[in-house]
Amino acid sequence: MAAVQAKGLYQFDGDSTNGEISFEPDEILTIVRQDIGEGWWEARRENGDQGLIPETYVELLSIPEPQFPPPPPPNLPSIPNNLPLGVNPVNNANHGFGNREPSYDEWDDEWEDDDDQSSNSTDNQSGAPTSTGSQNEPHGQGNFGLSVPKRERKQVSPTSDMSKYGTVKSSFNRFSHFAKLGGEAFMMGQVNADVPESDLIKIIETENGPDWTPLQSPYTCTISSPKKATKMKGLKSFITYHLTPSFSNIQVSRRYKHFDWLHLRLVEKFVCIPVPPLPCKQISGRYEEDFIQERMRHLQQWLDRMVRHPVIAHSEVMLHFLTCTNEKKWTEGKRKAEKDPYVGGKFFLVLQTPPHACDMKDVESQMEVFCRFVMNMNENCKTLVATNNDFSKKHMGPFKREFQKIGNSYRGLARTFNDDHVPYSRDLTAAIDYMGEAYTMIGDMFEKQPPKDLHPLIDSIIEYRGILQTYPDVLKVHEGAVGKAKECLKSQEEGKLTESEVQSVLQRADTISYGTLAEMHNFHHERVKDFKDMMQKYLKEQIEFYKGITSKLEASLAMFENA
Amino acid sequence: MAAVQAKGLYQFDGDSTNGEISFEPDEILTIVRQDIGEGWWEARRENGDQGLIPETYVELLSIPEPQFPPPPPPNLPSIPNNLPLGVNPVNNANHGFGNREPSYDEWDDEWEDDDDQSSNSTDNQSGAPTSTGSQNEPHGQGNFGLSVPKRERKQVSPTSDMSKYGTVKSSFNRFSHFAKLGGEAFMMGQVNADVPESDLIKIIETENGPDWTPLQSPYTCTISSPKKATKMKGLKSFITYHLTPSFSNIQVSRRYKHFDWLHLRLVEKFVCIPVPPLPCKQISGRYEEDFIQERMRHLQQWLDRMVRHPVIAHSEVMLHFLTCTNEKKWTEGKRKAEKDPYVGGKFFLVLQTPPHACDMKDVESQMEVFCRFVMNMNENCKTLVATNNDFSKKHMGPFKREFQKIGNSYRGLARTFNDDHVPYSRDLTAAIDYMGEAYTMIGDMFEKQPPKDLHPLIDSIIEYRGILQTYPDVLKVHEGAVGKAKECLKSQEEGKLTESEVQSVLQRADTISYGTLAEMHNFHHERVKDFKDMMQKYLKEQIEFYKGITSKLEASLAMFENA
Repeated sequence: MAAVQAKGLYQFDGDSTNGEISFEPDEILTIVRQDIGEGWWEARRENGDQGLIPETYVELLSIPEPQFPPPPPPNLPSIPNNLPLGVNPVNNANHGFGNREPSYDEWDDEWEDDDDQSSNSTDNQSGAPTSTGSQNEPHGQGNFGLSVPKRERKQVSPTSDMSKYGTVKSSFNRFSHFAKLGGEAFMMGQVNADVPESDLIKIIETENGPDWTPLQSPYTCTISSPKKATKMKGLKSFITYHLTPSFSNIQVSRRYKHFDWLHLRLVEKFVCIPVPPLPCKQISGRYEEDFIQERMRHLQQWLDRMVRHPVIAHSEVMLHFLTCTNEKKWTEGKRKAEKDPYVGGKFFLVLQTPPHACDMKDVESQMEVFCRFVMNMNENCKTLVATNNDFSKKHMGPFKREFQKIGNSYRGLARTFNDDHVPYSRDLTAAIDYMGEAYTMIGDMFEKQPPKDLHPLIDSIIEYRGILQTYPDVLKVHEGAVGKAKECLKSQEEGKLTESEVQSVLQRADTISYGTLAEMHNFHHERVKDFKDMMQKYLKEQIEFYKGITSKLEASLAMFENA
Repeated sequence: MAAVQAKGLYQFDGDSTNGEISFEPDEILTIVRQDIGEGWWEARRENGDQGLIPETYVELLSIPEPQFPPPPPPNLPSIPNNLPLGVNPVNNANHGFGNREPSYDEWDDEWEDDDDQSSNSTDNQSGAPTSTGSQNEPHGQGNFGLSVPKRERKQVSPTSDMSKYGTVKSSFNRFSHFAKLGGEAFMMGQVNADVPESDLIKIIETENGPDWTPLQSPYTCTISSPKKATKMKGLKSFITYHLTPSFSNIQVSRRYKHFDWLHLRLVEKFVCIPVPPLPCKQISGRYEEDFIQERMRHLQQWLDRMVRHPVIAHSEVMLHFLTCTNEKKWTEGKRKAEKDPYVGGKFFLVLQTPPHACDMKDVESQMEVFCRFVMNMNENCKTLVATNNDFSKKHMGPFKREFQKIGNSYRGLARTFNDDHVPYSRDLTAAIDYMGEAYTMIGDMFEKQPPKDLHPLIDSIIEYRGILQTYPDVLKVHEGAVGKAKECLKSQEEGKLTESEVQSVLQRADTISYGTLAEMHNFHHERVKDFKDMMQKYLKEQIEFYKGITSKLEASLAMFENA
């Protein structure tokens, strides 16, 4: 790929402590990266200095070639044939938070991808640290994923987003996916159903329809104390987190790759549950402290949802992840989980459903409504993320500046009024100065507000987008089951299958319907709780914010009234 | 001048009720006016449609010639020789409010400039309506002075402003101005001092220095009921206002040209008082109702200041203007005022000063400080107008849009949640919808706020700019007097003047100093009062505004808490 060059349009005095470089008008720069986002590129000067530049300050001299491979044509299958059973390609993409099109750079996470590449593979691997590192990307290269000045929220690219969602939608009707997940084998009774009573997951009837048995002993798990550890004499470094489940209060130490492994297990096992993606792998570097904290916050958010889930919370793999402190036992438990017989289509073997049959038409229409709901809500959340991201940027940039400009202009007037030789109403002068300062401080408040309200709100909505983008593939399993059931009914009409054979197929289709409906109800309950909670938190902060502005203005007014 | 043409860059769907025209990309338009401001031009389509277009939607095809004559080179005298005594060219410019460079179009005020062109002339003319109209500019042409969509505040052009202030400054040191105003004749005792006792204006000593005798019977005068009147069988139309002074409660009917006449009389008489300019002559037309109201508000502001002034309030010309209801007497009083013997330098003849002499050094240093103060305050006010204008635009455009975008995105989510087939928590859905509506309403509040706080504030500051830009010429009179006094002292040293001759010159210089200092103190008192008042009013509205936002958010939060 030819080097992309750009010419400086204006002078730019970069803040080197923020990773920026300076350049002059007409200076020729080599553009190293254009996918940094928020209006920043990475560039190199002729003298070798390399860092961030604002893209609007330069003009490209050559048209850049696309940085990512072009998206596959819409009709190509999006699931490669060599994917193992139960691996859901959407769930498997570890780039949910921020929903950016992954650049290959971003997949290189030097803190995590040190010893094994377990993320995209189900090969048995020990999670214990080994010493065979490879991708040792040098520091300072490609460190700018989110490390741009001001730490503004990542803008979700509508294009990348659309194309991702497009993929989900286009694969949604391909029934073969169902077969790949082992659904067909389950439906046709080709898999062993000898599940011990203790492993059964019971679905109950509620007034809203089937639901999971409520969590008997709810618990929480806090993530804390992220620590940078090294191996290979410091050549490789990674972050460990302390996890403390409330039921044991015994700390375990986990790394991102362990979360990644857990995520993969949950996705391949719980095929009727939309397991949200993990936070995307960030590139750390200069700003690692902030990123580690943010990563931890996102991992906590993800884990909170998992330990709240009535089916996942008490699953063996989850408990193993949360409790195992012994390296040997860890490896054993890891191997056992990877050989779990009840993954993919076989997961439905463990469901204990209400005894009566489902009304297939009714279930189909419920699913149709729900599918539309998921698609619409996904669009709404996309819009909410975009508008709130933009709103956040406006707070931290233009709004802040407007108020500060106003503040400065009053303070300028106060300086004139404060001339030693003009002894008129020092009180008024002080009041105007105070008012100027108040507006300047209001400007600061605008800058500092989004981390208190908009950013947590955006985080929550982005988490929902992860779930919503995962859901279509989950619903596809059910659609496949319904398709298979209809196929069997037709075969019965044609005399190819006996009534009892078909009845047992329909019963198994009902099991899938029950599981899917139970999770749908669980989703709605969570959604109502989550949105109520996030909006309340957001509004409370907003109210405090505007009250804060009001009280600054009231203090200013009091100064004038006393003048 | 060649027609300026432009090509449409984008499609624009104009709001014809707002005077806008629509056009297509690549359509060629003839640009009729570019000096409309706020990003609007007036253009004509090939089909003859004419109206406003947003300038950023088109690209100019030919470079427009300058619309205004170039400013005179800085060293040319800025006072034409044929200007009559006492006419202050800055005060005489009737375009104070808004401080725009006057385009010739704007001087054509069809409601006012119907029968005579008295504004720039001191020829005796009857103010009574006559029927010799000339510049009958057709309706709908050049009607867009302020009549652009959204009625945003006029942006003060920093360039035009600088050049105007530059002119004031450059003429500030030309002592000859003093002589033109009759100051030299007064100083040298060449003018008659036979002033009746009743006409004397007394300057008193206060702890802050000399001041005008406080106004003995303060009064107010309200302007109301602007009415469009016509003459020449409807060919000419103009606006009459009702003026009701509080001391008589007898309505008089006045037109803009009468104000203009009064302004000219005040400027030529009260040479040590900065008489602020009248609101600029606006072109009315389609939006005349709004303009008439705004014009009236500005005239009221101007008149309020004049009737508050301890010297001007009870002057004969002011009382004539406020009370005369008889056409014949009006003409008599008008002629008398135009023949007032105590105008210009001779105004100082009517001042009755404290008996003791001034310390010339002390007065000079006070004036130096004050001159700097005026210049600095003028700069501060310029900045305040610019930042607050900008702030106002931000409220009515971007701020509003940001909040409405946020509101719409919540309402979109509520629509999805409101799906008839998804019966989960209607309360939550209603709360989200309410919250979306609240943000939309907050957006509306941002749009509606500037007329309540920023616009009155800007009006007040612009009024001060009018005073401040007028003041240097006023101070020049004093500087001329001091110069003349020093010249006489030197002549005495050289034996060209006797001590008693010089003493009487110094005494007359003291009279000018007393008058100038008295007005300076009056200015400071007014300034302190006005700025306290305008800031309090502004802050009170701001506080209400942010309280209003808070209560909208609190109502939204309550909806969630009840959900």
